[in-house]
Amino acid sequence: GRQPCEEFRRRGKEMVDLIADYLENIEQRPVYPDVEPGYLRSLIPEEAPEEPDTYEDVVKDIERVIMPGVTHWHSPYFYAYFPTANSFPAMLADMLSGAIGCIGFSWAASPACTELETVMMDWLGKMLKLPEDFIAGTHGQGGGVIQGTASEATLVALLAARSRAVRMILASDPQRPETGITSKLVAYSSDQAHCSVERAGMIAGVRMKKIPTEQSDKYAVQGETLRRMIQEDKAAGLIPFYFCATLGTTPSCAFDHITELGPICNAEKIWMHIDAAYAGSSFICPEFRPLLNGIEFADSFNFNPHKWLLHWQIPLGRRFRSLKMWFVFRMYGLKGLQDYIRKHVELAKEFESLVRADQRFEISADVVLGLVCFRLKGSNEVNETLLKRINNGRKIHLVPCQLSGQFVLRFAVCARTTESRHIREAWRLITQLAEEVMQELPH
Amino acid sequence: GRQPCEEFRRRGKEMVDLIADYLENIEQRPVYPDVEPGYLRSLIPEEAPEEPDTYEDVVKDIERVIMPGVTHWHSPYFYAYFPTANSFPAMLADMLSGAIGCIGFSWAASPACTELETVMMDWLGKMLKLPEDFIAGTHGQGGGVIQGTASEATLVALLAARSRAVRMILASDPQRPETGITSKLVAYSSDQAHCSVERAGMIAGVRMKKIPTEQSDKYAVQGETLRRMIQEDKAAGLIPFYFCATLGTTPSCAFDHITELGPICNAEKIWMHIDAAYAGSSFICPEFRPLLNGIEFADSFNFNPHKWLLHWQIPLGRRFRSLKMWFVFRMYGLKGLQDYIRKHVELAKEFESLVRADQRFEISADVVLGLVCFRLKGSNEVNETLLKRINNGRKIHLVPCQLSGQFVLRFAVCARTTESRHIREAWRLITQLAEEVMQELPH
Repeated sequence: GRQPCEEFRRRGKEMVDLIADYLENIEQRPVYPDVEPGYLRSLIPEEAPEEPDTYEDVVKDIERVIMPGVTHWHSPYFYAYFPTANSFPAMLADMLSGAIGCIGFSWAASPACTELETVMMDWLGKMLKLPEDFIAGTHGQGGGVIQGTASEATLVALLAARSRAVRMILASDPQRPETGITSKLVAYSSDQAHCSVERAGMIAGVRMKKIPTEQSDKYAVQGETLRRMIQEDKAAGLIPFYFCATLGTTPSCAFDHITELGPICNAEKIWMHIDAAYAGSSFICPEFRPLLNGIEFADSFNFNPHKWLLHWQIPLGRRFRSLKMWFVFRMYGLKGLQDYIRKHVELAKEFESLVRADQRFEISADVVLGLVCFRLKGSNEVNETLLKRINNGRKIHLVPCQLSGQFVLRFAVCARTTESRHIREAWRLITQLAEEVMQELPH
Repeated sequence: GRQPCEEFRRRGKEMVDLIADYLENIEQRPVYPDVEPGYLRSLIPEEAPEEPDTYEDVVKDIERVIMPGVTHWHSPYFYAYFPTANSFPAMLADMLSGAIGCIGFSWAASPACTELETVMMDWLGKMLKLPEDFIAGTHGQGGGVIQGTASEATLVALLAARSRAVRMILASDPQRPETGITSKLVAYSSDQAHCSVERAGMIAGVRMKKIPTEQSDKYAVQGETLRRMIQEDKAAGLIPFYFCATLGTTPSCAFDHITELGPICNAEKIWMHIDAAYAGSSFICPEFRPLLNGIEFADSFNFNPHKWLLHWQIPLGRRFRSLKMWFVFRMYGLKGLQDYIRKHVELAKEFESLVRADQRFEISADVVLGLVCFRLKGSNEVNETLLKRINNGRKIHLVPCQLSGQFVLRFAVCARTTESRHIREAWRLITQLAEEVMQELPH
């Protein structure tokens, strides 16, 4: 009807202003919320209202109920985890996607939804200069699909690998019971891999082994180690079938040597999946593309926010997600996206120089992209205290990682609006708190 | 920065108008698109642009590229599949969710995101009058989680059941190898269950059996049939561990007898999951709540658009999805939501009366909620031809189902804006095309 549309025109425009105000002034909010678990329940009724609330009341509650509990991922003072997307073109596209509101579980359920996704994945594949096998084109066997999360992409690749392995073994030994095959399968990933890889193994009901890495090898899986584990497992009667390589690990942004690992997997008929959740986007810049060399040995490949894979997924339903990519690719252009990534890497390098110039600190892993792993020289305790002090201050937000038993601080350049001045301010704050901590703690 | 925010204020408001215009005039568009597979690729470049496109060009392409390929799920002439949500409050909430743009994979990653979801799931559970076990509260063991799709909810329940079964057996027989257990597990669902249930079994690597249903039992699983299958499988050395009951099947909106099936599952220590993807929402109306009787025997329960389950999921990351529920519950109120569901059921009953008043047609399954299964008395061929004629007309859109070997037309009331006049117009069109088809085909 006309009336709710008129109301939406008014409220939608107010919401656009609310969002613009929020993002324009996000720096002034404490980046990390000061609430205790369970804070929200007491602020709202125990049940849904019988009669409608007014929209004014709902909007008032955004500041009263929601904002005090928000970790502001798009604040230029947010250096935790990894970046996540919210550009203006993406938000505009998302509004349109919500209005069309189709569930694209088949071509007929909304042809544009299926087709734009196929073509956008091709655009993306070409931006990354992926081998022709990965492109759908008009006749290709390849092509990508947008998964909800990297976790799902890793799982889907594992399931595809499991199915291929079972088929291959049954082809040569048709009498063998299928459950007997599954119980012998073994999958591998780095001990630096994301926890979702291990979880994928649990879901699929297959054995999953972690390959040890060393600081001296920059936390990358070595070919020799993989080869030895495969031989040992085969000797023990197991069937190696899946290896998940990581390009840009979560703790330290380490890169497994896929040019070395790929041929081993190919020779052993092991499905090689590449999880490049964070680093993948950077491969659109020619200077970072060499990090993806060896992709030609891979069976599947995923990265965030857009995952690259065969056309299959866990959920049946799906939103019109490719609209976001279409808007973003077009309104930034390839150059704009490259510039954006390069700026983040430069800011990380700037932070790295600040750390290196201070003798009290050390860099814990190579800075390749937008992540700097660093620590105070000294005990884990002093670094834990420093991080707690930083986060309690609520001006900047960082999370830690463990590298070779050491407690390390991760400084990830995340927000679209982060500038050099934010980096320098963050460093001033960190050194000031470090001084306090060092004075308080016994040497 | 300030400039992109100013641009967003302008473009965001334009997008609000574009969306309102689209939804206000959606009736005038052909509900089902007239395009061939592959139509979109030739309409846009083969690669992403190097330099940014203008926003004007992007907006122009919405009508040129996207809309010709859209199946309009929110047109009042859309009667295919099942309804999907897009209310104005939900769209407003989604805009805010996009702006906050947090990834809620842990409490600290955004406390408000985790906490609002827990409380909204409690609101929902109370609206459905679920047993206390399903409510989180402040001390409860229960609670729900928003899954991406019903497919994921069914899979997660199956994985939880698998894990419980393996634990129970290991507790009594610690020497038994785990893979030996998995290979003996057997899960059940109705032959009317959604294909995602069968897929869940494939993903989890367990045997899945379909329980036959009969037209004379209204396509509901009978206790006696389940009991017999369990006994046969146990005698054959298998381990029954999971039964997925459906309340409101996709083909005909049939309801399995959970008051009869639940005690059987409980006695046999079989996990009973209830998939009420479509029907679940109706249980907020007291007159439909009896359909959920027997929920007290269930281990888990899911429905769309909000799925009800233990706190676990496949993906690690998640959007701030509960904001949508919060806005919708508050701006409609419980009464508004009940009224909305009742109106859809009434419209379906109106359509049912029209069908029953015409001797050439028959109703193929009980009309309980918003779905009417009907057909021309006569061959499958004549009904297939009728459906093809209907969809080729592009004025209304329906999809078929198979019931007891018969080709049946499904008329699902879907859009928020569907009124009695749309129902009557749809029926006029259907009878007119039926007349044409019957004249053309030999008797």
